[in-house]
Parts: sequence; C-alpha cells; structure tokens
Amino acid sequence: MAGIDKIDKLDSLRLEDMDVEVLKQRLLSAIGDKNRVLFEEEVDDRYKSDVLGRRKGTVWALVRTVSAMEVSKVLRFAWENNISVTPRGAGTNLVGSTVPLKGGIVLDVSEMNHILELDKETFTATVEPGVTLQDFQEYVEGKGFFYPPDPGEKTATIGGNISTNAGGMRAVKYGVTRDYVMGLEVVLADGRVMTVGSKNIKDSSGLALKHLLIGSEGTLGVITKCILKIMPKPEASISVLVPFADLHTGMEAVWHIINENTNPTAIEFVERKIIKLGEEFLGLQFPYPQAAAYIILTFDGHPSEIEADVKRIGQLARKKGALDFLLLEDKETAADVWKIRGVLVKAVEAVSEQEPVDIVVPINKTAAFISFVHELEKKSGMQMVSFGHAGDGNVHLCVVRGERSQKEWERELKENMEQVYGKAYELGGLTSGEHGIGISKQHYFLKETNSINIQIMNAIKNALDSKHILNDGKVYIFQKAIQ
Amino acid sequence: MAGIDKIDKLDSLRLEDMDVEVLKQRLLSAIGDKNRVLFEEEVDDRYKSDVLGRRKGTVWALVRTVSAMEVSKVLRFAWENNISVTPRGAGTNLVGSTVPLKGGIVLDVSEMNHILELDKETFTATVEPGVTLQDFQEYVEGKGFFYPPDPGEKTATIGGNISTNAGGMRAVKYGVTRDYVMGLEVVLADGRVMTVGSKNIKDSSGLALKHLLIGSEGTLGVITKCILKIMPKPEASISVLVPFADLHTGMEAVWHIINENTNPTAIEFVERKIIKLGEEFLGLQFPYPQAAAYIILTFDGHPSEIEADVKRIGQLARKKGALDFLLLEDKETAADVWKIRGVLVKAVEAVSEQEPVDIVVPINKTAAFISFVHELEKKSGMQMVSFGHAGDGNVHLCVVRGERSQKEWERELKENMEQVYGKAYELGGLTSGEHGIGISKQHYFLKETNSINIQIMNAIKNALDSKHILNDGKVYIFQKAIQ
Repeated sequence: MAGIDKIDKLDSLRLEDMDVEVLKQRLLSAIGDKNRVLFEEEVDDRYKSDVLGRRKGTVWALVRTVSAMEVSKVLRFAWENNISVTPRGAGTNLVGSTVPLKGGIVLDVSEMNHILELDKETFTATVEPGVTLQDFQEYVEGKGFFYPPDPGEKTATIGGNISTNAGGMRAVKYGVTRDYVMGLEVVLADGRVMTVGSKNIKDSSGLALKHLLIGSEGTLGVITKCILKIMPKPEASISVLVPFADLHTGMEAVWHIINENTNPTAIEFVERKIIKLGEEFLGLQFPYPQAAAYIILTFDGHPSEIEADVKRIGQLARKKGALDFLLLEDKETAADVWKIRGVLVKAVEAVSEQEPVDIVVPINKTAAFISFVHELEKKSGMQMVSFGHAGDGNVHLCVVRGERSQKEWERELKENMEQVYGKAYELGGLTSGEHGIGISKQHYFLKETNSINIQIMNAIKNALDSKHILNDGKVYIFQKAIQ
Repeated sequence: MAGIDKIDKLDSLRLEDMDVEVLKQRLLSAIGDKNRVLFEEEVDDRYKSDVLGRRKGTVWALVRTVSAMEVSKVLRFAWENNISVTPRGAGTNLVGSTVPLKGGIVLDVSEMNHILELDKETFTATVEPGVTLQDFQEYVEGKGFFYPPDPGEKTATIGGNISTNAGGMRAVKYGVTRDYVMGLEVVLADGRVMTVGSKNIKDSSGLALKHLLIGSEGTLGVITKCILKIMPKPEASISVLVPFADLHTGMEAVWHIINENTNPTAIEFVERKIIKLGEEFLGLQFPYPQAAAYIILTFDGHPSEIEADVKRIGQLARKKGALDFLLLEDKETAADVWKIRGVLVKAVEAVSEQEPVDIVVPINKTAAFISFVHELEKKSGMQMVSFGHAGDGNVHLCVVRGERSQKEWERELKENMEQVYGKAYELGGLTSGEHGIGISKQHYFLKETNSINIQIMNAIKNALDSKHILNDGKVYIFQKAIQ
C-alpha cells in the first residue's frame, strides 16, 4: 500500500520520489493529535464522496483540523509536496464538491465547530466553519436574534453554506448566505492566512475578495472563521396556503404578490401531484386537495403588520384567481403543510434513486420552464418532480431513476438534462441557484457558460492557487495551470 | 507636440517607435465619429482630474464612446499599443479615480446614457453606464418603481456608482449599490466583452465575477451595460428629527432603534455646531437649536406600518434620552432639515478647501471614533466637520484647510490623517465606506491593509490585465505587472 503513487500527487508536476512514510511523519507532525490524521484504508468511505455517495474519489490521508493554524500547516505541507487537498465540512453537498477527485488529502473542518462570539452591539456572530446551520440558528434565536438564511439541509455547516452561497426559502425577503457574510478568515492554497471583510456594514476599500471567496466551493481557500450578520428576531410569523386550479395562474399571482410591497418571507410553489408523494410517505393530509397547485407564503414581523399584510394579500390573491386563502393559524395544520413540503425529496428517494436539479430562472420564466419540464416528462417517460421557490425562480427537480439499469439511467438522464439545462439558459437561467456546481453539474455549466467567463475564473484560480492544490477539477476548472 | 513620448505609454514596455500620427489615425478609425475623439491640447482640463480638481494627469487622447463595440475597439487598440486607459463617467469622484495618472487615453462613457429596458416582470432595469443616478431614479419612480441606493451626488453616473460601490443614506434598510447590481456587461483590458450576473435572483454557478467588478474602480474592466434591481415604490415616507443633549447619548439610542426591528430607511447623525454652518450658508433655521446633536430618521412603507413604527420608536427614543421626537410632517420643515443636512459639504467648501474623508467603522465604534476626532481637532487646531450615517458607521469628515499655505496644508493634513485612519483601523474600521480609494486614499489604504490582501488584489489585477492598461496605479495597485 505504500509507494508514492498512492498519494495522487498533482500529475502535471514531476517530483523526486520520496518515501511515503517520510511524508506521513511530516503530515503527522503538523497536527497536534495523531488521532486526527488517518491514512489510506483507515479512512471511512463517507470521506470519499458527497451525501449522495454516487461518485467516489481516493484518499491518501484524512486530516481533521481544529484550528486555522493546523489548516495552514496542512496546506503548506500539501503545497510544498504538490498534494491535492479536498476541504469538507458535514459533506451534505449534492454535487460532488467533496469528492476527492485527485486523491491526496481530505481536510475536514467539521470539528472546528465553536461559536466564538455573539456581538450584540454590531449585530454579528463569529463562528468556526464547522458549526452546523441548525446549531447556529438555535443559538442565535435563543439569544433573541435571527440568522435569516435557511437552506433546507440543517445539518450542513456554515462553512459549507458559504462555500456554495446556499439559499433557501427565506431568500425572497432576506437574501441568501452571501448577504449575511460580513467577514471571513481563509487559508490560501499555499498556507497563508488571509482575512477578508470585517464588521463594517459598508466597504468601498479595494477589491471584494470576500465576495470572490463566497460560493467558490473550496477552490480558492479553506474557510476557518466566519463573521455573520444577525438581526433582531421577528416577533411573529405566519404561513398561508393559497390553492389554485392550475400552476400557471398561481405563478402569475406571485408577481402581483411581490408587486404589492408586503415583503413576504417565503413564496413557495408545489403541485398537487407532487404533494401526494409527501402525503403518502408521511401518512398525513394536505389541506384543499381539490387544487392542482399551491402557493405557500410566510410573513414575519410585528403581529399588527403581518395582519395588515395578510389581509391585503388575501384580497389580491382571490382577485388573481386563487381558489381560497387559508391562514394556517392552527399549529398542527401548519406543521403538516411544512412537513409535507419539507419531505418531498425524501419521499422520492424512498422509492427510487433521483438526480437533484436546482436550476434558477428569472422569476417571470418559472412557469414556462416548468411547462417545458412537464412536456419533456411526457415525451421522455422520465419522471421529474418539480417544486421550489416561486419568489426567486429557483426550481428544484427530482429526476427519478425508476427501474432503469445503470446504463439506461446514465444515458437517458444525460439526454434529458441536456435539454433541461439548455432550456433554462435559453430562458436566461443558470445551472444552480443554491447547490453549487461541484462535479455533477460541471458538464452543463461549462457547456452553457460563455467561454470568456470560464477563462477569467480559471485565470483567478491560477492567480490564487497556481499549483491547483485546492479542490482541483471542480466547478469551472477543467485544466491544470500552465506552469 | 508630436512624438511618441506624449502618449505616455506604459513605461515598463519597450516598443518600437511609431509615428504618433499613425496611432492617431488608427484610434480615429476605431470610432465612428471624429468629433468624439480629441487629442492633446484639444482636451478640456476637466478630463484630467476628478471633481475636486486638485491633482491633474496628462491626456494624449479623449475618446467619448457610444457603444460597447467602440469601448472594445479602443481597449483593443490601447492593449496592442500598450497605452494606459482611464475610464470615466461624470467624473464626480472625490478620490482621484479619474485622474489619468499614467497619461494615455481617457475613455468617457457619459454619452452612453440610455435606459434600455424596464422589465416589470423581473423587477429589473437595464441601463447604459452613463445614465445619471438622478435621471434613473426619476425614470423608475415615474413608472411606479424605486431604486433604493441613494448616494448624495445625484449627477454621478450609474457606472460610477457601481465602480465605487456607492452607498448613501438608505443603506440602513436597503443596502448599497452592490446589492442592486444584477448583471453587468464589461469590456476587459484587452477588448474582450464579458457579461457577468443575470436577471436571476439566486446564483451559485461559479465564481462571483460580478462582485469582483463592483467596486473595482475601473481597474479590471469598463462597464458598458448594467442590469439593476428595482422594487415597487413605497407608498409613503416620513422623517423624524430626534434631538439629544450630547452625541454619545444619541449614538447609544441608535442601537436600540435598530434592535427594535422597525427597519428605518435612514439613520443619520449630525452635531449642532455643524448644523450652524448649513443654517448660515442657506439662511434657514434647523428645528430645536438647543440640542447638541441630532439623529434624523426616515421610515418608508405603508402608511399604517410607518405610523405604528414611528410611535414605537418615539417611545423608545424618549426612554433612551432623546430631548424630543419631532415628526417632520410639515413639508417645509422637513425640506429645510434635509436641505441643511444635504448642504454641509458645500457650506464648508464655501469658506475653505476641504479634504473629504468617508471612513467606516463598526456601528458600535462610531461614537468612540468621533470622540477621537474631536480630541484631535483640539490638539491639532485643524477643523474636522463630522456627520454621517449613524445606522451603518459611515462617518464623513470635511477636514478644513483654512488659511494654511499649500505646504502647511499638505504636511498637517497628512500628519492628522495618519492618526485618523490609524484610529479607524484600530477600531476595526476601513478607509472608505462609499467613496472608494482612488489615489487620494491609497497611502492610508495600503498602509493599513494586510499585505497579503494587497498581494492577492494585485494577483487578480495581473490575471485580468497583465499589461496594467486600465486605471493603473490606483486603489491597490502600486507596481507594474512583472512581465
């Protein structure tokens, strides 16, 4: 098992041979606790993939760091020895971002999970990257504050959320993760530590390095500290279910709702035929089953304001074709609605493997995009369960494998997805609204993105990580730096 | 006047001599209309500086482009012939961003001033970069929409606003220019045209090139088209004047106001002694002259919500030491208050040259920073008129020259500013909250910023503009690319 080949060094470089045992000792000496460094067969399979586990990489060493200093030492070691590094947190990503494609070292920051500061005076919190979204939300809410970004996967880490610029339902009113990152500490590929951003609200002081790092999926640096913006906690929140006879009418009503200036927190859409999957999976009942589609709204703020807003939107929705306007005041009914909405992916996965898609289109193209998907479903015979964020055009599809053989599945999926992504771009859309590109979406992303943008992204990669140590071959990177 | 030296070519490059007349002909042939290309003495002095006119560069040619195609041709010509290019719009910047420091070509986009589209369905507007903020705000408001960014200088162009990530008073509720840029078309240094961003609300598709370009002060590309986010127009707006016995009490009240979750549009602070300058300049009266400091608030939204919010904040402010809580319902009084607040810089400039400073500090450090400035005023004998955005820590100082000779002014200004910027950074602040760095703030910015950040900014510059054609020597760039 020894031998230099196992380390999967960057293959563009020719190095002198070195005994792998020497390298092991050097890596171990960078880390305070030997138990946090594992080699080869010692490494559990889950570190070789993402949460879907479909594609596996190889790992020479797994390092579980506990400080920026350790991350820096590991990266400096990797840089000097030309070893690939794949950073990861909870590994909940859906696009292969954490697959160690080029082998080498997997750098796990999930034990860097401390909340370092809640600074009430500046409405910021400082955390390590391995803190989970759930733990962070609970913590700040316990202190009377509120962290608005709310991606569905609560066991994801804050570092992971930042790396993919995760979104979620509350984006309509509050924006996405990017909008809540005030500052970052990152370790660059060569081990240098850099801080970007700050606790300042405004910043016109040089290039926006912070924004370049947000959403860069671990290709430019490893996040070791995060300063996040928090807000005073809204006093109240209420959900409303608005049934429609068809999805198109519902989507048209969404524009009028946005235009009414009541600032809903979330505007979700879902079709009856999809809801059924959730109902059956959970054994629960969704209200108003005679509708074909639903818009689910939430409002938060002061109770008196919410009341006034809901009243206005109720009148408007009926005028725009809503079959009803159901205020989910009963806690149990509200919980059931959100449980069913939240379980849709799992309900699909219970019966079949699925390919998750999170295309985003301009909000006025959502209905056209979904119509196209419905047509393609009919034509191709491949089921595509669609639902998502009507308020921001972010459409989730679960493309269902069903009984297809691996070969059929791969071929048909690719054929259909070429069409789906092609249509999305034709409508002015993008590959991903919140999941990121990783390796799973790379083919479509590279195909549909202007080549100059890809060239510039690669030029930036080469400027920051000329050896392509970090998460090589992912997102926009399709070739090595030319040395 | 002829002779190659006049063109101020990039001095790191050694080119064969070429007759300047040949170059003139080639530049003219890139532009459709000869009247839009001027050479040497034909170029008005205002194209050699910013609005302050203190530092002048040299110009070989001024080109007033009318399309992205022309911008591309000019840049390709400049790239091939190694000629510096300084892009500009209205030239209202305060930090020397538009000073043609390295000579060459001044590229003026102010005639690219068309509003190309108002897309109600996606809540976006597409404009050319030379549209002024005032024209754009008036246009969208006339159509029932609203563009929240509101920097003080309304004759600035949208392209300029984006290049410095301009802020303004409404940032407390609505954020800054960055938050309203959906997409950009830019021409890169070598003439290639690139579009970044889109009409999509969410984006996790590759590196955030759009954000890198926003605030880059013309060092990475020339903006030729802007897709901006607009919103439904708020139904009503009201201002409130809250007088305090001292600034410190006022600044403490600001935190409680933010924490009350009423989301004011603006939270400004100003001291009585500064207000006097405005009163005298305009011959107007500011209410409640017995106070030492004021917080001015605005609220916008539905009338019923504003009413409820204002009531709550009124009660809170009195509890936190406000001397009164004056609802500016009388239009004339409200207009006078904002006229006086708006004229402060001009009131200072009417009596003396001044150095504008727009430091930003974390909001809980604003009072400490202003106290430091007051102490320094006393110690140094140099007047520093301070006011600004209490809701986001962006403090404006007008440092007053008075009767000082040029030499005294330069020496004393630098001495005092070293201390002011040093203190700002000590408090966790930054050089600029909205004006940008240009050349005027470069000394302090480079001194106070970690060298690794400056190195990475320069690495990005070299990746995008290896010849340093664009706005060379500004912001973070202190040396030429090493070829």
